[in-house]
Amino acid sequence: MTTLDDLPLRDNLRGQIPYGAPQLSVPVALNVNENTHRIPEAVAQDIVARVAETVLGLNRYPDREFTGLRERLARYLGHGLTAENIWAANGSNEVLQHILSAFAGPGRSLLGFAPTYSMYSLLAAGGDTTWIPGVREHDYELSAESAVAQVREHQPDVVFLCSPNNPTGTPIDLETIAAIYDATDGIVVVDEAYAEFAPDGTESALTLLPGRPRLLISRTMSKAFAFAGARVGYLAADPAAVDALRLVRLPYHLSALTQAAAEAALDHTDEMLAMVDDIRGQRDRIVTRLTELGYTPHRTHSNFVLFGGVDDPKALFTALLERGILIRDVGIPGHLRVSAGTEAETTAFLEALSALSSEA
Amino acid sequence: MTTLDDLPLRDNLRGQIPYGAPQLSVPVALNVNENTHRIPEAVAQDIVARVAETVLGLNRYPDREFTGLRERLARYLGHGLTAENIWAANGSNEVLQHILSAFAGPGRSLLGFAPTYSMYSLLAAGGDTTWIPGVREHDYELSAESAVAQVREHQPDVVFLCSPNNPTGTPIDLETIAAIYDATDGIVVVDEAYAEFAPDGTESALTLLPGRPRLLISRTMSKAFAFAGARVGYLAADPAAVDALRLVRLPYHLSALTQAAAEAALDHTDEMLAMVDDIRGQRDRIVTRLTELGYTPHRTHSNFVLFGGVDDPKALFTALLERGILIRDVGIPGHLRVSAGTEAETTAFLEALSALSSEA
Repeated sequence: MTTLDDLPLRDNLRGQIPYGAPQLSVPVALNVNENTHRIPEAVAQDIVARVAETVLGLNRYPDREFTGLRERLARYLGHGLTAENIWAANGSNEVLQHILSAFAGPGRSLLGFAPTYSMYSLLAAGGDTTWIPGVREHDYELSAESAVAQVREHQPDVVFLCSPNNPTGTPIDLETIAAIYDATDGIVVVDEAYAEFAPDGTESALTLLPGRPRLLISRTMSKAFAFAGARVGYLAADPAAVDALRLVRLPYHLSALTQAAAEAALDHTDEMLAMVDDIRGQRDRIVTRLTELGYTPHRTHSNFVLFGGVDDPKALFTALLERGILIRDVGIPGHLRVSAGTEAETTAFLEALSALSSEA
Repeated sequence: MTTLDDLPLRDNLRGQIPYGAPQLSVPVALNVNENTHRIPEAVAQDIVARVAETVLGLNRYPDREFTGLRERLARYLGHGLTAENIWAANGSNEVLQHILSAFAGPGRSLLGFAPTYSMYSLLAAGGDTTWIPGVREHDYELSAESAVAQVREHQPDVVFLCSPNNPTGTPIDLETIAAIYDATDGIVVVDEAYAEFAPDGTESALTLLPGRPRLLISRTMSKAFAFAGARVGYLAADPAAVDALRLVRLPYHLSALTQAAAEAALDHTDEMLAMVDDIRGQRDRIVTRLTELGYTPHRTHSNFVLFGGVDDPKALFTALLERGILIRDVGIPGHLRVSAGTEAETTAFLEALSALSSEA
């Protein structure tokens, strides 16, 4: 039988295994920061109706410029943005890949502040960009002083700032982002995949866009919008930066089905986001209870909680899984990560954890 | 205003403009080799029903392994293939990009036989792969002798063979493909995007797969399946080669909507492919009439015809466009390319061309 080693694979792929959290079928899946609430019925009906209008014409290529989708995303984001400021792709991973294809590559570098979203280093490797793992401070926080010093030292071509950060949950404040922008001539990306889960009154990095053409803010419909299965990531930036992404995308990269479904969902923004408050409540409940149980949850603006104080993460992960609850071992010693689910799912997790903690 | 030149774009993108045929709204669009027949009503209904089942669960990430889709694609292709042999992505462009990401890249090279599908050189450039434009013989044919000599001379890491070839329509025979495979230690891809339009009895390169783990056959649902808007390209190869593509794909690259729609379409293969015979008939009619009008159509196994003998391609293109008929100037001197449409569309094209030719 032929194996991977028998094929003329690129050298930097030798020995690698594919990325991925396990896709197990369990009663309570709180492992990949999904929104565990199903799409509201009324919105689902409208999505299906919009898709139905599209299906007969699937023989034709889709609108390469996905104009209707960009208009709706601009309207949703507000901040005076228009369709010209918007880009979208099949998940924010693809948006980030487009950014690296346009602004990084061989001989160029990407800086992120570890621990951070694990795809960043994989995207860098996939595009032959040098990955520079910057460091965070106490409790995974990032100060302007430290960040600027690291940017000045490494002079990266692109900086990825995940805020709130996955897997730690910690946000980066706007002054730090502005200081990083001023410290580099490169591209600065703020990945706000989880922005909608931040406390009321938290300002988005979108407010920093005016006058900063090298600043790109990426978002996703996977989390707050409960649309992970539809694969819609997007981005707001200066129209010139959006033009740069047009140079590297594959033609017709967004299907007519994706465009139709996302447009319909965006026409129901309020209903789609109705569960965000509930999820924030469950997240806060997790933080409170974890503290009571003696764990050390980190500050989070996300729909998940990273908690330390776990003596044996693998054992706790396995014990929870045996009880039908799937969370995530993100590879940080002494830590595990859990997504906030529905009230019932969150209760199941907390009760199982309480039982296991009292056993120990 | 900020322009592209003000941004820290990669050097190899400077001065480029995005790929793309014009997306004009015209009565008769025969420019991008679409299947101009709409999806059959009964199939459309089943696609919508399948999508409807999927929508409520869009809050969850899709099946990363798109197992149901791979099983159906294997069944469609036959030749003893199973799901393990199959890969898929958002259009065959993304399939080809995955191949280059796994087997090409900086310091490696891709050989194609020009003129050929224009995305090949763009995909190479996008992944910092050196593009080697091989040459074809008289009438854009490719013999084993010439192809093998070029492969031996350039020793490419990957060879892309478009058969039938876009934009010329010419097929490459299986003996030539087998000889090319034997002449290289690299990856050999046969892009059979238009295979279903070949004359009855034409054998697919799928028959060559057994015992050739470096041979990959790419296909698409965009053409014969009339599914361009859904963006589904796929590939058949040794399971080890499929594993290699798992290393480079973005996680969850195929949306749940794409999987559902494509599965439904594949459950109606006969109905979806019902128009292929009609399209082949229209193509043959185009060839016959073009010859009568004094043009020189090239041999074609596709749903399009490349024809020479055009004194002024830009002028003829424009004159047809003024009559509501959009065809394609593929940049070959003295040539234009036209897709076979419905009978009515084909008639409109041929009548307009006849009128313009008698004026000249």
